[in-house]
Amino acid sequence: MNIFCAIDLNKQEKAHLKKNVTLHEIIFKDEIGGNPVEAFFDCEICFGNIPSNWIEKSNKLKWLQLESVGFDTYLKLQVPNIPLITNLKGFFAIPVAETVIAGILTLFRGMDKFVQLKEKEEWQGADMRPSLRTLNNSTVLILGAGSIGLHLKGLLESFNCKILLYDKYNTNADSTNISDLQAILPRMDIIVNCLPDTQETKHLLNKERLKLLNENTIVVNVGRSPTIDEDALINCLREKLIAGAVLDVTNKEPIPQNHPLWKVPNVILTQHTGGGYTNEILDKVDLFLENLKHFEEGSELQNVVDIAKGY
Amino acid sequence: MNIFCAIDLNKQEKAHLKKNVTLHEIIFKDEIGGNPVEAFFDCEICFGNIPSNWIEKSNKLKWLQLESVGFDTYLKLQVPNIPLITNLKGFFAIPVAETVIAGILTLFRGMDKFVQLKEKEEWQGADMRPSLRTLNNSTVLILGAGSIGLHLKGLLESFNCKILLYDKYNTNADSTNISDLQAILPRMDIIVNCLPDTQETKHLLNKERLKLLNENTIVVNVGRSPTIDEDALINCLREKLIAGAVLDVTNKEPIPQNHPLWKVPNVILTQHTGGGYTNEILDKVDLFLENLKHFEEGSELQNVVDIAKGY
Repeated sequence: MNIFCAIDLNKQEKAHLKKNVTLHEIIFKDEIGGNPVEAFFDCEICFGNIPSNWIEKSNKLKWLQLESVGFDTYLKLQVPNIPLITNLKGFFAIPVAETVIAGILTLFRGMDKFVQLKEKEEWQGADMRPSLRTLNNSTVLILGAGSIGLHLKGLLESFNCKILLYDKYNTNADSTNISDLQAILPRMDIIVNCLPDTQETKHLLNKERLKLLNENTIVVNVGRSPTIDEDALINCLREKLIAGAVLDVTNKEPIPQNHPLWKVPNVILTQHTGGGYTNEILDKVDLFLENLKHFEEGSELQNVVDIAKGY
Repeated sequence: MNIFCAIDLNKQEKAHLKKNVTLHEIIFKDEIGGNPVEAFFDCEICFGNIPSNWIEKSNKLKWLQLESVGFDTYLKLQVPNIPLITNLKGFFAIPVAETVIAGILTLFRGMDKFVQLKEKEEWQGADMRPSLRTLNNSTVLILGAGSIGLHLKGLLESFNCKILLYDKYNTNADSTNISDLQAILPRMDIIVNCLPDTQETKHLLNKERLKLLNENTIVVNVGRSPTIDEDALINCLREKLIAGAVLDVTNKEPIPQNHPLWKVPNVILTQHTGGGYTNEILDKVDLFLENLKHFEEGSELQNVVDIAKGY
C-alpha cells in the first residue's frame, strides 16, 4: 500500500519512519513537486492532517492517522465511505497539563513580572511578596474529564487543591449540567477548560457566566477557543473582574499584530504550544507505527474517532 | 512585659496584633521617633529581626521571635545569656516549593519566552514546540531534607520525577556524603538547593562540581547563595554548559544594575520572594501570638534555634 505522509518531519524523523516501514511505499508531501493531492489520491493510508475535501475526492483512502487530538475539520465529511480516522487522544495529556500548571504558577508566583524586571534590570524584591499567591488549597474547576483533565487533576491534588470536574458525558464528574456549573462558578479560584469544540461546548463560558467569576479567578483555556467567549473574557480582564488568564488557544492563530489580547494585562499566551515537547514528533511517528501494525494485522486501531459524536 | 515589634506591619496587621495582645505593652519600631534601640533595651520580648549587637547590649531580652528562617546574623552572638531565639522554620515550605516548581516550569514550558513574545506582539507558535520540555520523568536532586525539600519532593513526585535527597544530617537521605554527591551530579536533570548557610555548605556546588552537570541540567537555589559558587554558575550559564537556573537568592541583594546576572540567558531571578504570599505577614503575626501563649504559660516554644549548630 501507499502511505501519504502529510506531517512535517525532519531528516532524522523521516529516517526513523522509513526504517520501520518495510511493507509499504511512503510518499512525503514535502518531497513532491507540483500538486501533492494527485499523489495523495494514490494512497490507502495517510499520516498527518490534510484538507477534508481531499478525503471527499479520494477513492482509495482507508485510514487517516491524524497528528492532532482535534478533528473539527472532518466533522462535516460527506462521503459514502468515511475512512477510519484515528487521532492522538491522550498523547498531549502530560505536556498540556504541565503547561496549565506552568501558566497558573507563572501568574501566582509572579514569574511574568520577574522576567520583565530582569529585562529592565530592576529589583523590586520584598515589595513583590504581597502580590504573590500560592496554588496550595485552591479550588479548581476542570471542564472536561478527558485525559488532560484527569492528568491535571492528579497534579493539582499534590498542591492540595480541591478539584471539581464538569463533564456532561462522565457521570463520575462533580457536575454534569449547566445549572450546577453556574452555581459553582462564583467560588472558583481557577477554571481550566479542556473541552473539545462541539455544538454543546460553544460559548459554555459566555458573558453572563464569566460575570459570575470573582476577582481572584484565573481562567485557563487548553481546550478549544470557542468554548469561552473571547471578547467577553478580554473585557473581564481589562476591567479586572478576574485576576488573569492562561490561553493556549485563541480565536485567531496566529494572533494578529495589534490584537487586543497582546495588550491585556495578566494574560499568558502560550501560542498553541501546550502539547509541544522536544521528542513530540518522534513519539508521534512511533504511535503511527504502532497503529500501522494493528492496521496490517487487521486488529483494532487505537483512538478511532467517532465523527458523528464529535469527540 | 514589653514587646518590641521590629517587623514592618501595616495598619490592619498592627490592629490584629494589638487586639490579641492583652497582657503586654507593644512598642512598634516605626512609631518611635529618635533612636529605637533605646526603646528596645526596655523590652523582654522582640518580634522581628534586629541587629545582633542590639542583643549583645540588652540586659532584658528574654525571647526573640525572628521573622525569617535564616539566623546567620546571630551565629556569632557573644553574650553571657543568649536569649531564647525562635525562627520561622517550616513557615515558607509551601510558597518556596511552589516558586521552585514555577521557576522550573517557566523554563521547561517556555513561559519566559512567551512573556517576552507577548511584549513584542510576536507569534512563534509551533516553532517553539521543539524547545519545550516536560518535567515528567525528570531526575531531581534536592539538597537539604528540611521542610522545603520534603514539601518539594511531594510535589515533584506527582510529576512522576525521580527524587534524590542529599542531607548530611538525615540518614533517610539518598546521599549523605560528598563522594556520593559527586557521583550522581552528572545524571541530574534538576538540582534544587534548600540548604542553610553554614561552614559545611559553603560552595558545596563549587566550580569543579558544577562542571560535572550536563547541558540539560537546571540549577535552582532557594537556600542560601554561598552554597553555590555564583561566578562559576554564571560562567556555566554563559557557556551553555547547563540549561538554566532559577535563583531566589543571590550574593548581592538587591542585585546591582549592570550585574552579570541580569544579562545571563535562561535565568529566572525571583528576587528573594520565594517565601512571599498575600497573607504572609498576618500569618507571621499569628505564629508569634501562638508562641507568645507558650511563653506566657512557660511551656516550650515552637522552633527554638540552636545557635551552636547553626540550623
